[in-house]
Amino acid sequence: MADYRLWCMGESGNAYKAALMLELCGLPWEPVWVDFFHGETRTTDFRAKLNEMGEVPVLEHDGKHLTQSGVILDYLATLTGRFGAHDEDERREIWRWILFDNHKLTASLATLRYLIQFAKTGETPVTEFLRARAVNALKIVDHHMEGRSFVLGERCTIADLSMVGYLYYGDELTVPLADFPHMAAWLQRIKAMPGWKHPYELMPSAPKGR
Amino acid sequence: MADYRLWCMGESGNAYKAALMLELCGLPWEPVWVDFFHGETRTTDFRAKLNEMGEVPVLEHDGKHLTQSGVILDYLATLTGRFGAHDEDERREIWRWILFDNHKLTASLATLRYLIQFAKTGETPVTEFLRARAVNALKIVDHHMEGRSFVLGERCTIADLSMVGYLYYGDELTVPLADFPHMAAWLQRIKAMPGWKHPYELMPSAPKGR
Repeated sequence: MADYRLWCMGESGNAYKAALMLELCGLPWEPVWVDFFHGETRTTDFRAKLNEMGEVPVLEHDGKHLTQSGVILDYLATLTGRFGAHDEDERREIWRWILFDNHKLTASLATLRYLIQFAKTGETPVTEFLRARAVNALKIVDHHMEGRSFVLGERCTIADLSMVGYLYYGDELTVPLADFPHMAAWLQRIKAMPGWKHPYELMPSAPKGR
Repeated sequence: MADYRLWCMGESGNAYKAALMLELCGLPWEPVWVDFFHGETRTTDFRAKLNEMGEVPVLEHDGKHLTQSGVILDYLATLTGRFGAHDEDERREIWRWILFDNHKLTASLATLRYLIQFAKTGETPVTEFLRARAVNALKIVDHHMEGRSFVLGERCTIADLSMVGYLYYGDELTVPLADFPHMAAWLQRIKAMPGWKHPYELMPSAPKGR
């Protein structure tokens, strides 16, 4: 059994945040596929044993189960000395963007994609509302990336690995990514890093999930 | 001028998270009212000088401007030694709940309240969707609080102060709070703490904002 086990699925950008970190750090990890589309994360058993919040990712390491991608990223950065903060100001800046990601970027983008791609609702007032919020968040990211290589400046950190979580799903997102050139350049920069893989390469997907 | 200045408004539960912490810690702070309802947080000037994310709260202290309520809470806990973690496991548990709050609880509850109370959209497919998500998040909180006094067990931490951010707005939330008795008892417990105040008492509100 690998040192690190990650409950995940290829469709989850939140799980991807953790999977990409594990892979970029070259850690010995294995995915444990979760049947999200048949409700596995929301069962009493999953909630009791793995995560009361009913979500992936869950990381098992050293007898511990960690949940919330931001916590997992921070844990792995501390353990490996990779992609973490060098001082307190950086640490706060990293958390600031991880919180923005959770509250504004992922919260709108992931939900929009879920409704369109998996729940197959088609265009509704809800998808329209979520898309407007996602675009607002993407504008903030694009503006921030102008003149920067990574979120903190010249060095890739877990803030980047959190924020890119859903951004490689391309057309599945149903937002005009081409409108955000600074963001696109940043995504290419991370994609060029040794060990980078797409979420669907890194984690198993549901047979009919897509 | 007070040592701590907080850009905020009474209608913002996110600003309340920081304001409540400042008040419970007995720190010398003053609110700087932001005219959110006339778009002040989204102006070029506000974004350039205070927060590129276009949001409150912003905390000024010691020549620094801090944003994101989770970062502000963590900063103040470190500085004062109050409501923070005692070890690494606690630290992770605190961040886990602050992230859940940002991603699932506040993200749905605050947006729902905004649409109904301030944007006056009435009931729409969007408010229905957000209410269902808010109720899911509240169920998780209620279940977690069963048999616990505070989020981490017996001691109030910044995880509690983050999660209660919107929960004292009562009827404004348009969710059935009475369905969650363990959560209600926890809210009463925090309300009973010395120095507790309601968001509308702690921060100035817009004249016609409510």
